Amino acid sequence: MYRSHNCGELRMSDVGKEVTLAGWVQRIKDRGVLNWVVIRDRYGITQLVFDEERTPAALLEQSKTLGREFVIQAKGTVIERESKTKNMATGDIEILVTELNILNAAQTPPFTIEDETDGGEELRMQYRYLDIRRNPVKESLIFRHKVSIEVRNYLSEQGFIEVETPYLIKSTPEGARDFVVPSRMNEGQFYALPQSPQTFKQLLMVGGMDKYFQIVKCFRDEDLRADRQPEFTQIDCEMAFVDQEDILNTFEGLTRHLLKELKGVEIGDFPRMTYDEAMRRYGNDKPDIRFGMEFGELNTVAQHKDFNVFNKAELVAGIAVPRGNTYTRKEIDKLIDWVKRPQIGAMGMVYVRCNEDGSYKSSVDKFYDQEDLAKWAEATGAKAGDLICVLSGDTNKVRAQLSALRMELAERLGLRNPEEFAPLWVVDFPLLEWDEETERYHAMHHPFTSPKPEQIELLKTEPGNVKANAYDLVLNGNEIGGGSIRIHDKEIQAMMFDYLGFTPEEANAQFGFLMDAFQYGAPPHGGLAFGFDRLVAILGGQETIRDFIAFPKNNSGRDVMIDAPAPVDDEQLEELSLKLNLKS
Amino acid sequence: MYRSHNCGELRMSDVGKEVTLAGWVQRIKDRGVLNWVVIRDRYGITQLVFDEERTPAALLEQSKTLGREFVIQAKGTVIERESKTKNMATGDIEILVTELNILNAAQTPPFTIEDETDGGEELRMQYRYLDIRRNPVKESLIFRHKVSIEVRNYLSEQGFIEVETPYLIKSTPEGARDFVVPSRMNEGQFYALPQSPQTFKQLLMVGGMDKYFQIVKCFRDEDLRADRQPEFTQIDCEMAFVDQEDILNTFEGLTRHLLKELKGVEIGDFPRMTYDEAMRRYGNDKPDIRFGMEFGELNTVAQHKDFNVFNKAELVAGIAVPRGNTYTRKEIDKLIDWVKRPQIGAMGMVYVRCNEDGSYKSSVDKFYDQEDLAKWAEATGAKAGDLICVLSGDTNKVRAQLSALRMELAERLGLRNPEEFAPLWVVDFPLLEWDEETERYHAMHHPFTSPKPEQIELLKTEPGNVKANAYDLVLNGNEIGGGSIRIHDKEIQAMMFDYLGFTPEEANAQFGFLMDAFQYGAPPHGGLAFGFDRLVAILGGQETIRDFIAFPKNNSGRDVMIDAPAPVDDEQLEELSLKLNLKS
Repeated sequence: MYRSHNCGELRMSDVGKEVTLAGWVQRIKDRGVLNWVVIRDRYGITQLVFDEERTPAALLEQSKTLGREFVIQAKGTVIERESKTKNMATGDIEILVTELNILNAAQTPPFTIEDETDGGEELRMQYRYLDIRRNPVKESLIFRHKVSIEVRNYLSEQGFIEVETPYLIKSTPEGARDFVVPSRMNEGQFYALPQSPQTFKQLLMVGGMDKYFQIVKCFRDEDLRADRQPEFTQIDCEMAFVDQEDILNTFEGLTRHLLKELKGVEIGDFPRMTYDEAMRRYGNDKPDIRFGMEFGELNTVAQHKDFNVFNKAELVAGIAVPRGNTYTRKEIDKLIDWVKRPQIGAMGMVYVRCNEDGSYKSSVDKFYDQEDLAKWAEATGAKAGDLICVLSGDTNKVRAQLSALRMELAERLGLRNPEEFAPLWVVDFPLLEWDEETERYHAMHHPFTSPKPEQIELLKTEPGNVKANAYDLVLNGNEIGGGSIRIHDKEIQAMMFDYLGFTPEEANAQFGFLMDAFQYGAPPHGGLAFGFDRLVAILGGQETIRDFIAFPKNNSGRDVMIDAPAPVDDEQLEELSLKLNLKS
Repeated sequence: MYRSHNCGELRMSDVGKEVTLAGWVQRIKDRGVLNWVVIRDRYGITQLVFDEERTPAALLEQSKTLGREFVIQAKGTVIERESKTKNMATGDIEILVTELNILNAAQTPPFTIEDETDGGEELRMQYRYLDIRRNPVKESLIFRHKVSIEVRNYLSEQGFIEVETPYLIKSTPEGARDFVVPSRMNEGQFYALPQSPQTFKQLLMVGGMDKYFQIVKCFRDEDLRADRQPEFTQIDCEMAFVDQEDILNTFEGLTRHLLKELKGVEIGDFPRMTYDEAMRRYGNDKPDIRFGMEFGELNTVAQHKDFNVFNKAELVAGIAVPRGNTYTRKEIDKLIDWVKRPQIGAMGMVYVRCNEDGSYKSSVDKFYDQEDLAKWAEATGAKAGDLICVLSGDTNKVRAQLSALRMELAERLGLRNPEEFAPLWVVDFPLLEWDEETERYHAMHHPFTSPKPEQIELLKTEPGNVKANAYDLVLNGNEIGGGSIRIHDKEIQAMMFDYLGFTPEEANAQFGFLMDAFQYGAPPHGGLAFGFDRLVAILGGQETIRDFIAFPKNNSGRDVMIDAPAPVDDEQLEELSLKLNLKS
């Protein structure tokens, strides 16, 4: 062992002890006759001191050959500091060094290893091993570990069994694009990496495993949006002989446990909201309910005048911005520009100032009187001093736009406190979703989701209105989990594939093993999967996942540190019976 | 919830309770006026009873429509059994059913769902979800879960952090063959699936993470020998600021903890043996030390007579088979045939019967007298009643052959008790291994392993004799873990790549990121990886890993249940800029 103590643990009570520390040089304060060197390891920092009076000359000289990030081992005596500092846990003491070993020299790092670094994103990713030395990244990874331990122990105590499912599986065109893996031993054939262990966990239920979970890597070859990774981690769970209520209670219990153990936050029963209600009140199936600004639907109180923009709109809806009447005209114009950006896509925005005296001043005073505007205020819950922002048009678009505006304003108003936690179940998701491009229905969750039993008949006449026993767990405006009760009947599963446009042959080729399994006694079952990267990030008080992943990839799916992906040898391709077929 | 209780928990104290059970029909004993149905779930089995006296006629009739593996829900009253049985935990009671719901019918399964099944390996794999319903497989998977929980909690309490490393990395030709993953977004480029997280865990050490572990899937595209899987699980560990002694102690602690918690076996300090000693005494670098039969080297006592076979041999060595003198001549001939099989490859075998009267009778009495044979007996530790088996020839071959014979005989003699645990550290492995085929040295462990510092000079003159700080943990004749102290100095790593035949350009292209990292302050570090599948199997009292893996692949790397790998669409290949290049 290269050390007797770590760099975070020595205190006044250790004064007089002979100790050995090992770590990296964090800082050097060379005052000539006196040289202070701060040494760092995973656990903290400790100050070493070398001085002309007490340190042999050669050792003092040696201490001056050190540079930032050198790896050293220092032996010495713990002494009380003359000027103590509260800025470090070991700030009461320092080490009077008697022996110094340079374990490894270091080049000057390309960015400073400090909480606030001068390194940009790209540089930090290229030298991720240095970035990990920084407290914010290191602590995020340690936090992730703690969450995983809590999850595993909690579920294990509830009788769940972690079962490892295979990574080399079969490609299924449904859903996102698979990463595929050519098989050398099976010429011309490919494995796929799992987008989720969905079918395997269902087979475990058929196999009687009853309560399954797994913290598992999943893969999607998607064009990457910001904060998406081609490989991501899921807490994947499934239960048999349960209904939706049992599943919600179980995973609400897990989430409550994590909030309590990791954040010290105690939360009672999680509120629930149907998908339809979430869309109506927040324009969003994952509403952030840490703050208000709920939608007011204004059709009945805004379509009775000559304002054609509203009259021809499918939906007129507004939100009340708390204290928004303080905005200047210029600020409001900027807000209008913001909603008109292509990313949001609104045609414009109507606004109403709610004056302190109870009167209203709107951008559509030409059409609406005070009485009208008072009704808008009532519908949006606006109080004196607020600003009402109103959008109109196609229902789905208005909801998406107004939801984006609501989130943006909440961000600006500081209403999205990362240390406040507001979980929410959104239930009764639609079973199917119309896809404009392919002009057919897709499964909103996945093709194994059960329609609500009482609505199976409705599938024939109004498929778009059929709801599923499908649910999402939302935390602070992020979907952190989602799941459903599954189909466990072969006939219904076959019917479902049919609705989704599979021929019986296609369904059989891709999911024949699951349909087969359903013939041998499949129990009723359902489950849920948490997005682990995001769950950890949100519990950690952040919305971006990247610092909670040790070695993330960039938006082109590259690991810039190891420089992957990379070309492979011709020989390797030859063995795999493949040839490149480059477009460029 | 479909049940109030599970099928394993009802006892006499529950008599009189109204309960609901759900599960699979295990057995039906239809006696006409009386129908017993045994229902099974993950937790056990319980007997349901329907009879003419107490059960409504329609319900009795309904119970007769049930078949094996139907999924049912039964409500009823717990009653005391007339004829109790100790064969089942719930054998004191049965359920007088008042309501029966068939949740899902089932076809007759292709094999019986019993501890001893009539299903062959292939059928069981094809219907693995049914196989998992069988106790031996189910319990193996649950046991695996328990081991993983113990490992994680133990290491976590020791300050280890589980860090997830990426699965989409870079292909490196060194070592076994990689599985590769074409990148759609980076045309003509490929990721590789990790054979182990080796370089990433070393980078975590450079990043100051200090104590890392991960239970992680690894991948090797090898031609599969029996009981090898293309994807397998590793407990991967690494520590910084430690020497070999710290690592051995840490993971000896983990192994001791597992043996105690999971098997109730307390073991003191694990014995240690050098690689050279293991080869000399057992002909094997992973000796099973649950039993003796150590090698006796006989060169000095067998090469002084006119027996040319021995005289021209590099090594003459024998083992004493306990009570082997009971073997008939025919049995001994069979044993000679066994060692001459091509898989073993011995040219022949000399034997010596150790008679009860202290005399010897050998197959080479023409050359050796009683005094000679007494020396052989002494060297092999043979006692009266034993049989000495002697092989000769090239040292490495004799060791391999005699080791195989030793294991075979131990198996036949019942000396390999799966409930006895004999761990052993084998240390001081050679750094390099001569490869006849490529006529150059390969890294015996991997190219990141540190030579013993005092032997670095020897690398230039006698590379084959240089030992490494490399070690294996052996349990019952199986390597369950292995590791080494790593190189942390850029110059030594470069020298090592040079010895292994890498050009500087190749070394840089493949491992430049690691060499770069070593420039920025790499601490001394080392680690170990356990083969998790094998560890679990051995702890579970078995030597084959397949039943400890939920969905294993067969020897052609196929998942016969889901029928993977499989061809993919031309469109998919097109997107990946690939074309098939079939040989056949």
